[in-house]
Amino acid sequence: MTWLDLPDGAAFDAWTLPYGIFSTPGEEPRVGVAVGDHVLDLAPLAATGGLDGAHLFAQPTLNPFLAAGRRAWDAVRGWLLELVTGEPHRDLVEPHLVPVRDVKLRRPFDVGDYVDFYASQTHAENVGQLFRPNSPGLPAAWRHLPIGYHGRAGTVVVSGTPVTRPSGLRRIGPPADGRVEHGPSLRLDIEVEAGFVVGTPSRLGAPVPVADFTEHVFGMVLVNDWSARDIQAFEYVPLGPFLGKSFATSISPWVVPLDALSHARVDPPPRDPEPAAYLRDADPWGLDLEFTVTWNDTVVSRPPFAGMYWTPAQQLAHLTANGASVRTGDLFASGTVSGPRPGGSGCFLELTWNGAEPVALADGSSRSFLEDGDTVTISATAAGPDDTRIHLGAVTGQITPPRSHDH
Amino acid sequence: MTWLDLPDGAAFDAWTLPYGIFSTPGEEPRVGVAVGDHVLDLAPLAATGGLDGAHLFAQPTLNPFLAAGRRAWDAVRGWLLELVTGEPHRDLVEPHLVPVRDVKLRRPFDVGDYVDFYASQTHAENVGQLFRPNSPGLPAAWRHLPIGYHGRAGTVVVSGTPVTRPSGLRRIGPPADGRVEHGPSLRLDIEVEAGFVVGTPSRLGAPVPVADFTEHVFGMVLVNDWSARDIQAFEYVPLGPFLGKSFATSISPWVVPLDALSHARVDPPPRDPEPAAYLRDADPWGLDLEFTVTWNDTVVSRPPFAGMYWTPAQQLAHLTANGASVRTGDLFASGTVSGPRPGGSGCFLELTWNGAEPVALADGSSRSFLEDGDTVTISATAAGPDDTRIHLGAVTGQITPPRSHDH
Repeated sequence: MTWLDLPDGAAFDAWTLPYGIFSTPGEEPRVGVAVGDHVLDLAPLAATGGLDGAHLFAQPTLNPFLAAGRRAWDAVRGWLLELVTGEPHRDLVEPHLVPVRDVKLRRPFDVGDYVDFYASQTHAENVGQLFRPNSPGLPAAWRHLPIGYHGRAGTVVVSGTPVTRPSGLRRIGPPADGRVEHGPSLRLDIEVEAGFVVGTPSRLGAPVPVADFTEHVFGMVLVNDWSARDIQAFEYVPLGPFLGKSFATSISPWVVPLDALSHARVDPPPRDPEPAAYLRDADPWGLDLEFTVTWNDTVVSRPPFAGMYWTPAQQLAHLTANGASVRTGDLFASGTVSGPRPGGSGCFLELTWNGAEPVALADGSSRSFLEDGDTVTISATAAGPDDTRIHLGAVTGQITPPRSHDH
Repeated sequence: MTWLDLPDGAAFDAWTLPYGIFSTPGEEPRVGVAVGDHVLDLAPLAATGGLDGAHLFAQPTLNPFLAAGRRAWDAVRGWLLELVTGEPHRDLVEPHLVPVRDVKLRRPFDVGDYVDFYASQTHAENVGQLFRPNSPGLPAAWRHLPIGYHGRAGTVVVSGTPVTRPSGLRRIGPPADGRVEHGPSLRLDIEVEAGFVVGTPSRLGAPVPVADFTEHVFGMVLVNDWSARDIQAFEYVPLGPFLGKSFATSISPWVVPLDALSHARVDPPPRDPEPAAYLRDADPWGLDLEFTVTWNDTVVSRPPFAGMYWTPAQQLAHLTANGASVRTGDLFASGTVSGPRPGGSGCFLELTWNGAEPVALADGSSRSFLEDGDTVTISATAAGPDDTRIHLGAVTGQITPPRSHDH
């Protein structure tokens, strides 16, 4: 379908066309689109190719393009699809293809508010069992609404940013002893998530209906919501996770447009009880995505997204149901993607059952939680056109040792 | 001490000199400083008065001035104090005084991340008793660290913005029944708080020591963290408050510089157990502030700030202790200011003991929670120079009825 000579394997094809921010030595960061092992330099291509709005791409962030709205997103995607599939456009496009090995990728957008949900029933039940062994696994509200909370927007970083092991207060001994110490986290973990990026803002006081999801949301990124379980376990009652999460949240550099996911849409699982009217979805947004988690050089799990109880369209409706507005650049994430079957855990807390069942890595070592120097890469695919699977990119990060004065 | 002819009563004096963003008909929003019943138009005054950096004031937000840092803040305040106290400067200043009745006040800064703490022991114990009657009042971590969480930055609004009654899911009947309904909040409340505004950012991975508080924090605002108690009570386990708070958080239009609070500094209460090293404060930032809460035309409480267990300097150290960075415009709030004595409640949940003890208003009506049309105004004073009390302004808001389709 394309005249581009695309490499085999885990690269973006000519359908996905994700957007990011790249720079080359001595030049300003600007908008690019990834195809194969190249980045399309969009601003000069748009200028020579006769596309309106080329200035939206000569920017160090996607936010101006995100704010341009659904009609602009559709127009640019239609134009791009034509360029990469029509052989006559080769001469126009080729001068603007930059080898991806020559570019530096930036955080693709300025994050407004960051909201993190909790939509995998398996994950919620497992965490409930591990964190609150004497309470019912699933919180009382969990089947009634998509439970979520605000995370720290200022520490959302692009894939590849090193993650320093955080320090904090944690319990030593059983909770009843009440003993506490301060030090580097001993239970540093990941959370595999899909993140959704708001383009078109909403007005304060005007909830966004489930059906308006595609008017407001531009696309998705892969998210690793790094989590220090020992810090989190001590601090989170009653106001929720704070320092256990806020040190870093990594996102993939490429934002995949929702339109590229049109073949991945599936029905979510049945909901019981039936959700409140504002959460009912006639046009559901379950998604057939599969994640792959690689710990150092070993694939340790393949979390499936299709079974998530609450969809991103319901999550957007929920987070605005009280009249809260969304802004361009707002990011909301699905919650840890954990499937019900073995091999589908979206965090190491579940994968190793809080350290009780360490995993073996290919180098012969074993792991319960992250060690200094470890690298985790989360990649994903989605159902694409013609029974293919399209690649959604990857988010990676390496753990660096704690600051010396934290020891 | 000043040549200005200042009105008596609850106006800013020539010492406080708070900053805000104002506009006049047909002109762009820009930085002003409040004195008495006037606003000093800072950009033209700086230009004619020979102050460097006048461009920082020809802006629709305080953020560029906030980012300029402690040295710039000190220089501008010193210059302003000289202008308003030295009679010879009258001719320079008077042309730039705009009557406050002629201006519109905007939200003074663009909010980065918004963090809300929980630092009043009285409030934490009361809420614990009301929300979790079968658990210990104070959460296990409360005396070890300043418990906090992230709120929604995108719905921080300036004083005077109407607050639409939010709708959401809430329990009907006892929790064990598991019955739920959706509708407008029946327990709409306020939270009286002091908010602290970050000027100088910090680096990711570099905690801010308690002692560096004044290097990073520019000043304070009054905060009303509107809260829908019924929505909050249903949703908040285990990830904390979300829709019960995110519909609106009101802040005062004038940011009072920390320097204006130098006479208000007091020792915080003794801490037991001794906090971890990163929370110890040799140079403590307890503050002698007194709030006044007016419900329609009735003063219903006077919450005292001086007894707050954790200070804003400790809160900043805590929120960065895991390496999280702060940005210019970040806002962190103290948590509800409730004193231990009667008449000191910082929210109506405590004032009316969850509705069991309604308050009488001057018009003969009584109230448990907010009704449509109600107005709440929170004002505050602080200990100032020469045993005076300086005024810190006010934050006000009126409740408007829920959207019709929410009924």
